[in-house]
Amino acid sequence: MGWNRVAVVGAGIIKFGELFEKSAEEMIEDAYLTCLKGVDKGIQPKEIEAAWLGTCRPGLHGYQTVGGVSLVGAIGLAGIPCTHVENGCPTGSDAFRNAALGVASGVYDVALCLGYEKMRDNTTQGLLGLAAQGHPVLQRGETAMTMFAPQAVRHMHEFGTTKEQMAMVAVKNHYNGTLDPYSHYQNLVTVEDVLKSPPVCYPLNLLDCCPQTDGAAAVILCKSDIAHRYTDKPVYVAGFGMGTDVPYVHEKEKLTEFVATVRAVKQAYSMSGLTPSDIDVVECHDCFTITEILNIEDLGFCEKGEGGRMVERGETRIGGRLPVNPSGGLLTKGHPLGASGIAQMVELYWQLREDVPSQDPRRQVELRKGNALQHNVGGRGISNSVVTILSRNK
Amino acid sequence: MGWNRVAVVGAGIIKFGELFEKSAEEMIEDAYLTCLKGVDKGIQPKEIEAAWLGTCRPGLHGYQTVGGVSLVGAIGLAGIPCTHVENGCPTGSDAFRNAALGVASGVYDVALCLGYEKMRDNTTQGLLGLAAQGHPVLQRGETAMTMFAPQAVRHMHEFGTTKEQMAMVAVKNHYNGTLDPYSHYQNLVTVEDVLKSPPVCYPLNLLDCCPQTDGAAAVILCKSDIAHRYTDKPVYVAGFGMGTDVPYVHEKEKLTEFVATVRAVKQAYSMSGLTPSDIDVVECHDCFTITEILNIEDLGFCEKGEGGRMVERGETRIGGRLPVNPSGGLLTKGHPLGASGIAQMVELYWQLREDVPSQDPRRQVELRKGNALQHNVGGRGISNSVVTILSRNK
Repeated sequence: MGWNRVAVVGAGIIKFGELFEKSAEEMIEDAYLTCLKGVDKGIQPKEIEAAWLGTCRPGLHGYQTVGGVSLVGAIGLAGIPCTHVENGCPTGSDAFRNAALGVASGVYDVALCLGYEKMRDNTTQGLLGLAAQGHPVLQRGETAMTMFAPQAVRHMHEFGTTKEQMAMVAVKNHYNGTLDPYSHYQNLVTVEDVLKSPPVCYPLNLLDCCPQTDGAAAVILCKSDIAHRYTDKPVYVAGFGMGTDVPYVHEKEKLTEFVATVRAVKQAYSMSGLTPSDIDVVECHDCFTITEILNIEDLGFCEKGEGGRMVERGETRIGGRLPVNPSGGLLTKGHPLGASGIAQMVELYWQLREDVPSQDPRRQVELRKGNALQHNVGGRGISNSVVTILSRNK
Repeated sequence: MGWNRVAVVGAGIIKFGELFEKSAEEMIEDAYLTCLKGVDKGIQPKEIEAAWLGTCRPGLHGYQTVGGVSLVGAIGLAGIPCTHVENGCPTGSDAFRNAALGVASGVYDVALCLGYEKMRDNTTQGLLGLAAQGHPVLQRGETAMTMFAPQAVRHMHEFGTTKEQMAMVAVKNHYNGTLDPYSHYQNLVTVEDVLKSPPVCYPLNLLDCCPQTDGAAAVILCKSDIAHRYTDKPVYVAGFGMGTDVPYVHEKEKLTEFVATVRAVKQAYSMSGLTPSDIDVVECHDCFTITEILNIEDLGFCEKGEGGRMVERGETRIGGRLPVNPSGGLLTKGHPLGASGIAQMVELYWQLREDVPSQDPRRQVELRKGNALQHNVGGRGISNSVVTILSRNK
């Protein structure tokens, strides 16, 4: 087995959705308190020695340069160190990676990692509004859609992937979302619904796209050798990796693979000593249906080009060979950038501990080897990916 | 001695100033290449396994959510992990802290930490423009000036600190700046110049305030036991600390001390096993003259209230008991938020290696014990501080 110097001993999340009625601080507080309550043997706030905050817009209404104090100020822990990490779509998972490095360094025994994002407030001057402004020349009009749709077209061309296969990703994840009380969407859709939903950017229709969602999630990490203080069922950080790629789509050599993901997962497998066949469940970055298809290929769960057919065969359903996004994923749970990666950790923490049946037994995946893989990819030009492997095995 | 698991083996900086003619990418490239060239025995880019970027505005023209790829994309290292840290005024030094944790964790042997900021571009929609928007109710009008001026008034009231003593900080740092080829300002000022400069917010005049400056700086860190590959004169990270405080000035219990600094330096002394008397030279956060006076008290170099008199006695000059801000500090070198902390590291790296005479022998401080202290404080409501202790002693 792998690295495993760091354990996760608590996890909490708030209901994702349109949270206009909640301030950023309230979202932070709610995720933090839920996380504290989720620690089996309890934890005192004063035991938390350092914190990491993942968000693309710290503070309220776009206020910049406020940093980590947004977190520790909101939860009454002003005093302890808190780093604010921003890193595009993998913001939450990179905050987690830095928290894990912090604990592994021996400097901090117990750390909090919390991610949140208000995506729905104040949208003209808001997060995606500013992002869409982009570079004055190179990037005008380079929205998420125009970055991911070409991958779908090329994947269809090279490998025969179909719009129906993409739609099946949405159908599966919407079903999973109905089993997850924290998911933004709670409705079933059919392949026909997806294919008939309004076209956004060929070949992606509205239901091929994740919603804009507000959300927050938190986990508590500690040195593995003290995890027993907090729980008898810790989940270990078996390994992680982060990869980057050229920051503009027009610079990429191919459109059928996310190079950042391939680099990230290689590190994570190497660090953990695990291989794709050791993974029981995956939470990966399904910002669009085509993204999940590319991801399962890039992460090594099938041959390049086989992702669409793997979905079609039902292998990625709960109960299938490799359940992917049992939480509903970004497509239905939502994608609040700073929170998404942490929310995936929360789901996998619950899955590996077999805690899910208390919410809905149909969402619990079958554990064979006791390992789970978390994945985000995104950022400017789809240039950034983080992969984390969690394990219930020490 | 202290922690010392991580060493700095390279440092580079670009000339600070109004760099309208340089793109963010060019600033990053220049700082990186200067840093590479500064490695005594050379280093290949491929030896760098991970990077940390400190900036409050990644990318160009306020484009958000682009993360660390701004750095690795610009320098041709797209592929390796890169975390983007944003944490108010200590952004650069917190990026350094995370890089140090990353190396100390054992996961990465060699890491790059680079900070940059373009403060002068596009100012109405720019960094400080957005920051000044603040919270719609609590913070309207809470500029840096209105956060720091009350500290000065209260310090004058409680301890008899004078405007002349504050002016002496500016006089000293302007003199030091004339010895530093990388400083934004390169002119001498007198106490009378400072006192007669336009009032900004009582009791601070224009020359009590740091300028808005563009800049970039970089360092290379590695595990101490491989530092010999890169240099025979490494500088070790003896310890560090980060402290936070309540995020609004109106919530603070006292105005004559930065609680975040006190918390940060306590951790740094504890981790390093050093005390104030072990420190030979300081680069601290003189965003305003009064800030340097509070800092030298908060960092333990004199009793609370004695900072003004310590300055007046000349103890903080180069050649004095404890040289403070030999680089010219933020007051004359400038304060590009993401770069400032790294720039302080660069100066202390040179000072501890006695490299400064090649630039100007008058700027080299005398080394007694071989330790140096770096400090930033700031963020919303002056709520965030990072302290790093560097040492030439293993």
